[in-house]
Amino acid sequence: MNFLEERIVKDGFVRPGNILKVDSFLNHQIDVSLMEEMGREFRRRFEGKGINKVLTIESSGIAIACFAAREFGVPLVFAKKSKSLNIDADTYTAEVESFTHKNTNTVIVSKKFLSPEDKVLIIDDFLANGCALKGLISIVEAAGASVEGIGIAIEKGHQQGGKMIREMGYDLCSLAIVESMDAESGEIVFRE
Amino acid sequence: MNFLEERIVKDGFVRPGNILKVDSFLNHQIDVSLMEEMGREFRRRFEGKGINKVLTIESSGIAIACFAAREFGVPLVFAKKSKSLNIDADTYTAEVESFTHKNTNTVIVSKKFLSPEDKVLIIDDFLANGCALKGLISIVEAAGASVEGIGIAIEKGHQQGGKMIREMGYDLCSLAIVESMDAESGEIVFRE
Repeated sequence: MNFLEERIVKDGFVRPGNILKVDSFLNHQIDVSLMEEMGREFRRRFEGKGINKVLTIESSGIAIACFAAREFGVPLVFAKKSKSLNIDADTYTAEVESFTHKNTNTVIVSKKFLSPEDKVLIIDDFLANGCALKGLISIVEAAGASVEGIGIAIEKGHQQGGKMIREMGYDLCSLAIVESMDAESGEIVFRE
Repeated sequence: MNFLEERIVKDGFVRPGNILKVDSFLNHQIDVSLMEEMGREFRRRFEGKGINKVLTIESSGIAIACFAAREFGVPLVFAKKSKSLNIDADTYTAEVESFTHKNTNTVIVSKKFLSPEDKVLIIDDFLANGCALKGLISIVEAAGASVEGIGIAIEKGHQQGGKMIREMGYDLCSLAIVESMDAESGEIVFRE
């Protein structure tokens, strides 16, 4: 097991309804040193790809993405989930369905912050059905930029997102892939 | 002018309706090295207060709060803005009106992540009317924890939030206080 898998086993909880609670270190309370370690791991994994921008989506991707951006020494852009009154009209948008919140959001990135020269590393905390990722990819490609890599903390391997994204040809690295989990026993099985 | 004021003058824009756009480095695209510098500044300012937790509110406070938490070597907790399906029922809540979005959110922190032993540094990107801060303060105090300091990137000095929070006796440090700004000339005047 790697450092993230060990932490999930130690501090994560499986809840009924295919929910993995990691809110004590990843997406509500945040262990910043764990975020740093993930940032370093993504740098090792995507070094040499010419990454000049990190893109994530609010909110729980931001902490991981901060440290990935710091490792690469590049700006971070986070996509926003609803139309704010002081966002530019000049934006790239995508519709994204949320697995957690059971709703659909318009996801927005200002056109100022993505251009055809950008080699983008997309970062997010969870990959389940892949809707958020597909939205971010469509935004990068609408800007004429390239998706050089995708770094995910936890992939739910029993859902279809990861398979779909890999079949589309993207270089996807999930630090922990949960193959199965059992709410009754609490057991979590990771992909080798 | 300090490093943040200089950056605001260089890359910020004043828009009609009392809007200061800093989305190229603070709250949409993020200059991570600027966040680090703010984190260091907040450590200098609040060192010796026994800070053992940083609290912010999603989304644009998270990046600054990450680096403040890293400086202090403590966990970060971010308050969530709406009831997620997998947030615990056992939460502290506050109602917060958003100046930017012109709506009201329920702000939530799980009771697991705040306790009477906590000495909390609250971090946010903007302070205008102070509604978000008051919500976070009420959550910390409901937990029996103490607000040891409040670190803000940009305070709008011509609105009432900062005055109100200081009169309540909190140790508030805003790195840049905008005294006035003019959308026509683009001029921004900071408090000395």
